[in-house]
Amino acid sequence: MPAKWKFAAAQDCWKSRLQHLRSDADWLAAAARLAQRARPLSRPNPGVGAIIVKDNIVVGRGWTMAGGRPHAEAVALEQAGSNAAGATLYCTLEPCAHVSVRGPSCADLIVAAQVKTLVYAVEDPDPRTCGTGAVRIAAAGIETRRVASAPADASLAGYQMVKRNNRPHVTLKLALSLDGCIALADGQSRWITGDVARAHVHAQRAQADAILVGGNTWRSDKPHLGVRLAGLESRSPNRIVLTRSGNCGDVATVSAPQQIAQLAGVQYLYLEGGAQTAAAFLKADLVDLIHLYRAPILIGGGKPALTDIGLTDLRQAHGRWKLADRRELGSDLFEAYERTPCSPE
Amino acid sequence: MPAKWKFAAAQDCWKSRLQHLRSDADWLAAAARLAQRARPLSRPNPGVGAIIVKDNIVVGRGWTMAGGRPHAEAVALEQAGSNAAGATLYCTLEPCAHVSVRGPSCADLIVAAQVKTLVYAVEDPDPRTCGTGAVRIAAAGIETRRVASAPADASLAGYQMVKRNNRPHVTLKLALSLDGCIALADGQSRWITGDVARAHVHAQRAQADAILVGGNTWRSDKPHLGVRLAGLESRSPNRIVLTRSGNCGDVATVSAPQQIAQLAGVQYLYLEGGAQTAAAFLKADLVDLIHLYRAPILIGGGKPALTDIGLTDLRQAHGRWKLADRRELGSDLFEAYERTPCSPE
Repeated sequence: MPAKWKFAAAQDCWKSRLQHLRSDADWLAAAARLAQRARPLSRPNPGVGAIIVKDNIVVGRGWTMAGGRPHAEAVALEQAGSNAAGATLYCTLEPCAHVSVRGPSCADLIVAAQVKTLVYAVEDPDPRTCGTGAVRIAAAGIETRRVASAPADASLAGYQMVKRNNRPHVTLKLALSLDGCIALADGQSRWITGDVARAHVHAQRAQADAILVGGNTWRSDKPHLGVRLAGLESRSPNRIVLTRSGNCGDVATVSAPQQIAQLAGVQYLYLEGGAQTAAAFLKADLVDLIHLYRAPILIGGGKPALTDIGLTDLRQAHGRWKLADRRELGSDLFEAYERTPCSPE
Repeated sequence: MPAKWKFAAAQDCWKSRLQHLRSDADWLAAAARLAQRARPLSRPNPGVGAIIVKDNIVVGRGWTMAGGRPHAEAVALEQAGSNAAGATLYCTLEPCAHVSVRGPSCADLIVAAQVKTLVYAVEDPDPRTCGTGAVRIAAAGIETRRVASAPADASLAGYQMVKRNNRPHVTLKLALSLDGCIALADGQSRWITGDVARAHVHAQRAQADAILVGGNTWRSDKPHLGVRLAGLESRSPNRIVLTRSGNCGDVATVSAPQQIAQLAGVQYLYLEGGAQTAAAFLKADLVDLIHLYRAPILIGGGKPALTDIGLTDLRQAHGRWKLADRRELGSDLFEAYERTPCSPE
């Protein structure tokens, strides 16, 4: 093929790539990926992502900084500078409309920067902003639209759960053999899964605000529950024990799953066993996401993953969980199951 | 792009496709797929696949016919006719060298057809042929080579197990909730998995020579164990019950897993529960393949998939099973795990 044809083909390819990136959904998904970088250090503020695009070129990117300020929009606008004028700003969350002692509202910043279009995914459930941010921006002549985005919605799961349901978002971790055991009958559980899966668990801990285990697990296994990933040791989440006795030294305790509503500043709670604690949260319908790690081993007659969760009819078990992610982690398999909308909350 | 460039590109593409199909491994894999059509009707003979290729064009295909004759090579050679001369014959199994009252040996047919090259994957463990088929064909001036092929090897798993280990190939089926239960505590198990997974199970039954359940399952569930797929009802395998009492009406029984060695004409045995029977076979190290069906449900405190299998140290559980296949079946997930070579036989 002569050089000029190759060049034409490359141009076509490049154009189609730009085309591919032109949809609102794609840019919001990119903003949602940026938002992940804010988790969990942005607490108590939501981890937001923002991306500013002009003529299909990214001119600014931002995510909520540690402690919650500056906001993602402010970071992206500062990076874009004068390029923000006439550009499109994509945000995972509706920009804030309230002035704080820590800085101006994002709505004011956006108007001042003269962006042409604002696209956001999730309406802010914070009553100080809810709807007013978008209204203020639209009133200034900026084309403003809300576009549903599953990745953006998922990236704000913890914040939305706290604001709308007054409790943290709960992820239940289960590490099992193929036959559903979490340990041998004598209690041996080190190790069921391999190095890669265990590193994945530590990365999840680093993204959580708090980690919870049952009193039996706390007393018998003395679990470390910290993040053992180089450079992330300081991200180890607060430890909480579910126990009725209340005697767990200097560690915070709750006496029932429902008490997680009282955990201040916790958007993401990570449950790490044992079987009774997992069952107690499931029975109380307080699990939003299941992270299932399965090793290619059989145990046979071992400790089951869950004790009774109150199920009396097999039909009731169906339709409550939906596969949301799956991947191989070394020789283990990982799956994520999300609570379905038809599950009662 | 002008027409002549498009034509050149299409030619390149076509050439590369032929190139893709030119390897011995690809043709042997194609022959292995043909061999699947012979299962289980070819019994007591192995289900073999054969494919004849001349100038990259398939001129003949065959698989072992019901009852074991004609052999796959004979079918393919008859289909190829005079095109077999100068062609390459690919077989999953070494062609037979023994003359039977039911027809001439495949070695003689191949020599008479003047094929140029023979490629086969598995040496016949039948002492009447082992090595002699290939030697006789090579002696006639036909280029003869054995090429290892995992799909061809797998397609002959039952035959090889009977000839080399004097017992059937055993597949254990498990249908579980995410937490590894096969039923609620009260015994309810209809249904854990959905329609698609259950149809897949029936297709597996249709490929088995016999199906085995435990005495408890047989007496309490009265399982049908037949093939409920339109047109395949007659393929329902023989039913066998594992029981020490021996009182199961007109159904064949074995009193211990090791007795499957005495099941005449059974190359493929399919185990369908319950937990004690599965554990008995695993404890006896008589499971070659696990078919795992998992529904996206939690049961909690239900009946476990397996009772004790004699494991005393978690480290012994590792390295024995290897993921060989995985797919979605409706909303359920299917995985196949193969016994690894390092497992003791």
